[in-house]
Amino acid sequence: MASKSPKPSISTAACGGGTTTTTMDVEKVFHMNGGTGQTSYSKNSSLQKKASDKVKHVTLESIERVFVTTVPRSMGIADLGCSSGPNTLSSVKDMVERVGRTSRTLGLPEPEFRVYLNDLPTNDFNSIFQALPEFQAELKRERGGGGEGGGGEGGPWIYIAGCPGTFYGRLFPENWLHFIYSSNSLHWLSKVPPGLYDAEGRSKNKGSVYITEGSPPEVAQAYAHQFNLDFSLFLGLRSKELIMGGKMVLIFLGRETSIHIDRGNSFLWDLLTKAFSTLISKGEVEEEKVDAYDVHFYAPSMEEVEEAVESEGSFEMEMLQMFGADNKGGEDSYKNDDGEMMMMMRSYGRRVAMGVRAVQESMLTHHFGGGILDSLFEEYGRLLDLELGIQHITPITFVLVLRKL
Amino acid sequence: MASKSPKPSISTAACGGGTTTTTMDVEKVFHMNGGTGQTSYSKNSSLQKKASDKVKHVTLESIERVFVTTVPRSMGIADLGCSSGPNTLSSVKDMVERVGRTSRTLGLPEPEFRVYLNDLPTNDFNSIFQALPEFQAELKRERGGGGEGGGGEGGPWIYIAGCPGTFYGRLFPENWLHFIYSSNSLHWLSKVPPGLYDAEGRSKNKGSVYITEGSPPEVAQAYAHQFNLDFSLFLGLRSKELIMGGKMVLIFLGRETSIHIDRGNSFLWDLLTKAFSTLISKGEVEEEKVDAYDVHFYAPSMEEVEEAVESEGSFEMEMLQMFGADNKGGEDSYKNDDGEMMMMMRSYGRRVAMGVRAVQESMLTHHFGGGILDSLFEEYGRLLDLELGIQHITPITFVLVLRKL
Repeated sequence: MASKSPKPSISTAACGGGTTTTTMDVEKVFHMNGGTGQTSYSKNSSLQKKASDKVKHVTLESIERVFVTTVPRSMGIADLGCSSGPNTLSSVKDMVERVGRTSRTLGLPEPEFRVYLNDLPTNDFNSIFQALPEFQAELKRERGGGGEGGGGEGGPWIYIAGCPGTFYGRLFPENWLHFIYSSNSLHWLSKVPPGLYDAEGRSKNKGSVYITEGSPPEVAQAYAHQFNLDFSLFLGLRSKELIMGGKMVLIFLGRETSIHIDRGNSFLWDLLTKAFSTLISKGEVEEEKVDAYDVHFYAPSMEEVEEAVESEGSFEMEMLQMFGADNKGGEDSYKNDDGEMMMMMRSYGRRVAMGVRAVQESMLTHHFGGGILDSLFEEYGRLLDLELGIQHITPITFVLVLRKL
Repeated sequence: MASKSPKPSISTAACGGGTTTTTMDVEKVFHMNGGTGQTSYSKNSSLQKKASDKVKHVTLESIERVFVTTVPRSMGIADLGCSSGPNTLSSVKDMVERVGRTSRTLGLPEPEFRVYLNDLPTNDFNSIFQALPEFQAELKRERGGGGEGGGGEGGPWIYIAGCPGTFYGRLFPENWLHFIYSSNSLHWLSKVPPGLYDAEGRSKNKGSVYITEGSPPEVAQAYAHQFNLDFSLFLGLRSKELIMGGKMVLIFLGRETSIHIDRGNSFLWDLLTKAFSTLISKGEVEEEKVDAYDVHFYAPSMEEVEEAVESEGSFEMEMLQMFGADNKGGEDSYKNDDGEMMMMMRSYGRRVAMGVRAVQESMLTHHFGGGILDSLFEEYGRLLDLELGIQHITPITFVLVLRKL
């Protein structure tokens, strides 16, 4: 269980990037792979999409409920950790359309929408923005013409802005938002836990990149502590930005039990550690370099989440559910530049490996240089294929719905 | 003088990109060259900086006046056509610091700032966003610590968002902004004037890319008409977004007299036309291709601007001044990746040519392909050097201050 700690003071980081030195590295370096190439997040995020799709009804019922109970003239919606790719705008579309339909069904005035897309400043916002004209046109077509109305008199009904900055800092003015959505982001910590290193800066987690069976107990404690700090901070910040009665739907990776080692999320890191071992034995990377590398990730247990929400105190927990989402048998397709659907011929293990590469490449390149990536993920994919032949891995995802008190 | 025309209805385009088919091309294609390479706008916009610097006192006095007369708790500021490069954030810094200083001097509460950076969706927002963490840190240092306070209780005092979309469409909700700044943008029309082409789509402006001595009178009329439509539309849209008493400072290229041909702005296009002629004679580009190309640019006269403001009716004109800004003898330096100041060894003509390339490359590449660019701008630079040896060219810039009634 996470150790209790004094509530941290609000970070000075704002929309536009944080300024605390401790979070500097992650904030300046970490991003999903940009663009639309073969190693891009855009083409390797079908697992993430599957997870958010599985609880789409929860997201849509929650935003609908906020709309019906507050009937705002102008509705503020934020997607925190929006990344760039097909998932980014499709979730905006679903939310906006649901509220629009509900308003028409119930005879309520349709609000004007203010949509804020947030991610770290190194995220590929250009790709999202370039897709906006087509996205707006599509929204308008499906709405049946009349891009105007809603909120302002004759104004457009949707405004979309990009809001770069860490969500472990304030992003919006007070009482600015009605609904916050965050998918596949909150398992990323603000930094690698400082507790992983001794006073001389030497890793206590040698030979591993996350909590593994070989890790000493302080490692799991350091991760749990960092999660508690970060998640409590996140809740406190968002409680300022949300109106009373506003809601958050948070989708992130978690653990099935209080045990840290499972066949869900920790196992994927365990295999990455093993892939590193192969590279070390081949002399392709130095052992010390690997010892010094740890991911800024944590999959909490339900109890850890509940405890943080309760002790922070600004939110009522309306739902906390766990579900398994994997990409097995799922489509592995993407649109090519001509808009045709293409299939990628890759084994399941390779596909998972590419998914992990798309989210980890920025941090790995920063630490190791880019030279080892192909070799590392080739080996990782091979190990995944082997393991998946023996037993299935199902990453566990949580969906958490919170209402601002 | 611009022909009168019925006031156009509000475009459905919103922040996030427009959807009117007529403006589609420009909106999807046009952007200043991104990144920080040798042909980037970032490294070739010292002329634009010089122009906005020359009237910086006007900008700062205007925003100060808005602050003092409205004393907002939360101040909305937009930079329309922000582009990407050193100019983008330096103007934000100047404005925010001026209001901060004034608030302290007069003992007024410092507002929270909401800063919206707008440009077309193809603008390089990634470069701006990646500079934000350092920018925020610098602002905070110069402010003397305490990144908090201002507006919200203990919240940060500045929020910066990117707002992609055409400013010939609505960008913000009603009464959202206190101050609008736009530098070097409003001389760009929403599209190439349709009046330049006959019913069969053939250009009436053969052999020229803008109004030149050889252009028939309909060409100047078509440009003036398009400017009147666009500028009136712009004023109407902004009047919705600004609070009463809010102000706009608009800096854009103009003409010294009502005559269309001058040694200011039209001359630069004239030389570009001549550079094209050289390429045609060498067989490097087809004559028909050049005939079909016209820029979506217009340098209005003072009378045209005054007339549009008056007939639109939402704004009081507080100032309309003309000034010359050139880069002669100006620095031609840039920071390299290590932050050292570097000088570029280029003739003045070459420097001007690179400046025009940085703003025109996207449109030229779209029409001609990228193959001719080096050759075209090599020739353009040569012609500029020749001409500038004979007589100076001083682009004329207008500064217009409008107060929302």
